[in-house]
Amino acid sequence: MTSLHNFLKSLLLFLLFFNLKVNAQKVELYNSISNDVLTIPSKVLNEDRRFYVHVPKTDSTSLNKTFPVLYLLDGENHFHILSAYIDYLSHWEEIPPMIVVGIINTDRKKDLTPSKNTITYDGKNDTTLRSSGGNEHFFQFLQKELMPYIETNYKTNSFNIFGGHSFGGNTTINCMLIRPEMFDAYIAVSPSLWWDNRFMLKQADEKLKKSSVYNKIFFYSDGNEGGSFHTAVLKFDKLILNKTLKGLRFKYNYYPKESHMTEPIVAYYDALRFIYKDWKKSTDAK
Amino acid sequence: MTSLHNFLKSLLLFLLFFNLKVNAQKVELYNSISNDVLTIPSKVLNEDRRFYVHVPKTDSTSLNKTFPVLYLLDGENHFHILSAYIDYLSHWEEIPPMIVVGIINTDRKKDLTPSKNTITYDGKNDTTLRSSGGNEHFFQFLQKELMPYIETNYKTNSFNIFGGHSFGGNTTINCMLIRPEMFDAYIAVSPSLWWDNRFMLKQADEKLKKSSVYNKIFFYSDGNEGGSFHTAVLKFDKLILNKTLKGLRFKYNYYPKESHMTEPIVAYYDALRFIYKDWKKSTDAK
Repeated sequence: MTSLHNFLKSLLLFLLFFNLKVNAQKVELYNSISNDVLTIPSKVLNEDRRFYVHVPKTDSTSLNKTFPVLYLLDGENHFHILSAYIDYLSHWEEIPPMIVVGIINTDRKKDLTPSKNTITYDGKNDTTLRSSGGNEHFFQFLQKELMPYIETNYKTNSFNIFGGHSFGGNTTINCMLIRPEMFDAYIAVSPSLWWDNRFMLKQADEKLKKSSVYNKIFFYSDGNEGGSFHTAVLKFDKLILNKTLKGLRFKYNYYPKESHMTEPIVAYYDALRFIYKDWKKSTDAK
Repeated sequence: MTSLHNFLKSLLLFLLFFNLKVNAQKVELYNSISNDVLTIPSKVLNEDRRFYVHVPKTDSTSLNKTFPVLYLLDGENHFHILSAYIDYLSHWEEIPPMIVVGIINTDRKKDLTPSKNTITYDGKNDTTLRSSGGNEHFFQFLQKELMPYIETNYKTNSFNIFGGHSFGGNTTINCMLIRPEMFDAYIAVSPSLWWDNRFMLKQADEKLKKSSVYNKIFFYSDGNEGGSFHTAVLKFDKLILNKTLKGLRFKYNYYPKESHMTEPIVAYYDALRFIYKDWKKSTDAK
């Protein structure tokens, strides 16, 4: 009954829309972008997980093409901008057309933290952080459930990018360190490296063996956060430099004019341009 | 018959969509953005004109709110990015929520040029430029048809911005000079000031009276175009400086790392931030 009711309601709205507008002018749907909102039941996380998927427009010459995938944390925040960048830059052949998967949060304090910790940036105890430390579990969800789903249902190639901001930036770095097989390129916009007594700096120092081979692309940045937020990022940058990893192509950008929330706009743009710096349309879809 | 046929086709697609997807996972429509594609018959231009309209999400607390409007040239190119910026920045209260009207070209060489001229940037004769010089006519379309339509059908306030790139940048500058009553703020991303022996520099010199009152906000920029493209922009910048106009708040940005086609991404962002530099949510919807 409910679904019949909903259907009839949709039909009514559809008809109303047509009747109301058609007298004034011709109406078309805006169809420049193609986005789905999907939900999969996650056994790993024991909950339904929602995500946006943006797919490139294909035409008759590109039906057999496959695309890199950007897995984007905080999808509800940054999916729209990243989809717009990717459509525009790929149209002008600066980067390849790509699929964007914007993962929507249920509990970002759980999923997007590498360790259990209830102390905030300001040194206060915050009981809402009790669920923290869920990174490993979340990576399993990505590796065993979300990525296979995307690879089965969309025209992916083998190049995967992982992008995150703030807690999400810490998360992409942690993934690079402890699950390096999962992604080819990482974007960490203002990673919360202050988290848990700079947990991630210890993690990085331990996992990255000096002068080892590390074939990854890595972009990280911060804005005007300043203080110990900025100091932690600078220390991390120094650590990365000192490790002299072979094959790692990395870049650190500092945006003193941008705040924690505006910086993703400029940093994600620069990150895409950096990852695809040497890309030429003629060579390869990656 | 045709509209019944179209309706049945839509209904069939609607049902098919539901049946195909619902078995795999729950499906929702991506509803973060609300865009229309509209067409109005223009008497001034003697043709139908299409445009995109992006409206802010409203909630029960903002039903009586009104919004500034950004009229954006080359809508097919930059509408998606500008809509994404505006949604994001207004969500984080850096700028007000705004309506974006993305005007789709029919003949941009006609509408977006201030004078008749068939000589290209490279000094060649180009017969496809025969229709050039349509700015005045196009401004009439905006002033008499498009803007009244938007003001009647959307919740506009009285603050209007005019944004354009390349020929479109020349056009927004020309509008500021010859129809200054139409807009409050102007964005000219890489304006083609080289056009017709620097026609627009003569226009600016003639129309802008030294030390006169000119209550406008004006952002202009160029990328790595170089050569006489860049020289013309520099000369224009000097002219604006020398005019010492009272009330004009202006900024020139140079982006040597961005090309003619990538520069709009960074320039439009900076332009929005500049226009609303002193805006605070608490003060005013503008």
